[in-house]
Amino acid sequence: VAKRLEKFRTTIFTQMSMLAMKHGAINLGQGFPNFDGPDFVKEAAIQAINAGKNQYARGFGVPELNSAIAERFLKDSGLQVDPDKEVTVTSGCTEAIAATILGLINPGDEVILFAPFYDSYEATLSMAGANVKAITLRAPDFAVPLEELKAAVSKNTKAIMINTPHNPTGKMFTREELEFIATLCKENDVLLFSDEVYDKLAFEADHISMASIPGMYERTVTMNSLGKTFSLTGWKIGWAIAPPHLTWGLRQAHSFLTFATCTPMQAAAAAALRAPDSYYEELKRDYSAKKAILLEGLKAAGFIVYPSSGTYFIMVDHTPFGFGNDIEFCEYLIREVGVVAIPPSVFYLNPEEGKKLVRFTFCKDEDTLRAAVERMKTKL
Amino acid sequence: VAKRLEKFRTTIFTQMSMLAMKHGAINLGQGFPNFDGPDFVKEAAIQAINAGKNQYARGFGVPELNSAIAERFLKDSGLQVDPDKEVTVTSGCTEAIAATILGLINPGDEVILFAPFYDSYEATLSMAGANVKAITLRAPDFAVPLEELKAAVSKNTKAIMINTPHNPTGKMFTREELEFIATLCKENDVLLFSDEVYDKLAFEADHISMASIPGMYERTVTMNSLGKTFSLTGWKIGWAIAPPHLTWGLRQAHSFLTFATCTPMQAAAAAALRAPDSYYEELKRDYSAKKAILLEGLKAAGFIVYPSSGTYFIMVDHTPFGFGNDIEFCEYLIREVGVVAIPPSVFYLNPEEGKKLVRFTFCKDEDTLRAAVERMKTKL
Ligand SMILES: CSCCC(=O)C(=O)O
Ligand SMILES: CSCCC(=O)C(=O)O
Repeated sequence: VAKRLEKFRTTIFTQMSMLAMKHGAINLGQGFPNFDGPDFVKEAAIQAINAGKNQYARGFGVPELNSAIAERFLKDSGLQVDPDKEVTVTSGCTEAIAATILGLINPGDEVILFAPFYDSYEATLSMAGANVKAITLRAPDFAVPLEELKAAVSKNTKAIMINTPHNPTGKMFTREELEFIATLCKENDVLLFSDEVYDKLAFEADHISMASIPGMYERTVTMNSLGKTFSLTGWKIGWAIAPPHLTWGLRQAHSFLTFATCTPMQAAAAAALRAPDSYYEELKRDYSAKKAILLEGLKAAGFIVYPSSGTYFIMVDHTPFGFGNDIEFCEYLIREVGVVAIPPSVFYLNPEEGKKLVRFTFCKDEDTLRAAVERMKTKL
Repeated sequence: VAKRLEKFRTTIFTQMSMLAMKHGAINLGQGFPNFDGPDFVKEAAIQAINAGKNQYARGFGVPELNSAIAERFLKDSGLQVDPDKEVTVTSGCTEAIAATILGLINPGDEVILFAPFYDSYEATLSMAGANVKAITLRAPDFAVPLEELKAAVSKNTKAIMINTPHNPTGKMFTREELEFIATLCKENDVLLFSDEVYDKLAFEADHISMASIPGMYERTVTMNSLGKTFSLTGWKIGWAIAPPHLTWGLRQAHSFLTFATCTPMQAAAAAALRAPDSYYEELKRDYSAKKAILLEGLKAAGFIVYPSSGTYFIMVDHTPFGFGNDIEFCEYLIREVGVVAIPPSVFYLNPEEGKKLVRFTFCKDEDTLRAAVERMKTKL
């Protein structure tokens, strides 16, 4: 293995999903629904396949999808972007992240992350030869430690990467936090990479896109995907929106990482993004009900439960059960309780910081959530 | 844009396909068919979508596809591989190339390519910080200059990358050439990356997989894809086969480049790879007829035509028409003749070496090929 990847292990998502299958445990680990995406989107994919939309797509996206993405961005964030010059379709948001980092970050550039973070951020930054700094968001509220962040920005800082709503904590960056970060970026000429795949799963306040903060669009790459919002995580349709000078760099990387993304699924994604508002309202209503079941269950089982206002994840403190760390706890949970969760210590530069925590997802049907809760209430 | 990508421009495939659309020219440039893939594969995709196979796949591939890939590799090359430990599904062969290079090559490692080469090789090696050396395959037969290659291997050489059947020349590496390269690899402890996406388009001799040369499997990554063989270039299903120690590195990169590949298309790809031999025979028969039309037409139009024994490309010398270089010729061809081809000078470290050449594809229906030939015969 190349040195740039030496320190990384098999992703925790793969490890945990494989253990779930092996032990027949209920999988509240990796964030994929155990129910299907909407019929109208599946139908659109089938139509595209039957219509012969099966050859290479335009490298940066099929025109109808680029347009649908631009339209949704206008509606959501009030920003008008050129679908052909500022929108790039990628093979999932993970590829958008990789293309952004490999396309825009040079060896030795410093990039600031908020820990805990989706593990691909650190790994891809390592592939790019970046120096990674992490600012830790701490329980119970996972607020941004503003002065600590300010002190971390140096003349070598090339970018700050945020994720709001935030996986794995469920935190949503507040307007004040976003504005503070925006000011830092503008004052220090720093780029902002914003992963917003859970934007439609914002339960208590409206999602705010960093690009919509005045003066930020020109230095921001906004990343999103189809999978979380349309319960089609396996289709791997993502995108990056950025001004032309940043789009150029990330598109170059994209050209050589995958060249183009699955054509018929792009056609279907365009149909999906034109869903009426009622689709998103119903999605949120469904997930609110699921969230309530898991939240109450985790409390009743004895966890210290932290507030989650976005995403389909809940972070808890497992220390009431007396285990040494998150990995030990999760192993017990799989083997003895029959439930899979994600140990988040791998989402920190210093794993110690995550060892009291465990992440559960509620993107499962209600019966599954109830069954998992029942197991935890009786066997923990 | 990051320094690693500074020297690269918009890929020639994108440039030419966009020009083809703009000018309404017949596109014999980028290698995608203008006819559809087989119904049984499309049906399998539709079934998978309807069956709810729409969530994240196992990161390194859905089990049925990994098995189908291993079975085909056994049939084609006589090598038995473990589908779970030695096969990795990727989002097209382009991602297999990126994962292999980013997962196994360190900054400063030297990698030897044969020019002309698919442009992603050089760009991805640049992303990895490798030093690229290129050995030029020269017309008319594009034979490997054995002594030149031998002299190029140094103690810093980490890998040699081959592509057989070879895009853009149509050359197939001979057994003698493969054995010579194999010996160099073994004597100098060099890895071998083998892009074999055109393996089923071998018209005059059987394709030989480098991994099947004695002693080579343990140091070889064999890459292939669904798109070329099943006329479904837009589905973006590729794979890499390698011994576990090499698979580890490339899988780590894959985990962070895309994480996983489109689930329902993987299910369909498994069905495709189990096609009976008659499918491949018919494919070759069809393409032989297409090739004959283009070959005769190019000769009749006045090109110097080089022999092509594999792939769906033919390389020609355009100098009888008096243009200064391949770009000027291709621009004239689009504007005045209404045909798009690929100027191959971008596939060389030194563009001068490609300036007399032009590449045409014959992966189009026969009427389209005849129409293109007619235009060239009358307007060139
Ligand atoms: C490849 S898993 C992507 C993120 C996610 O779904 C998770 O955090 O569980
Ligand atoms: C992204 S284009 C891939 C290769 C190909 O089809 C070509 O060389 O034309």
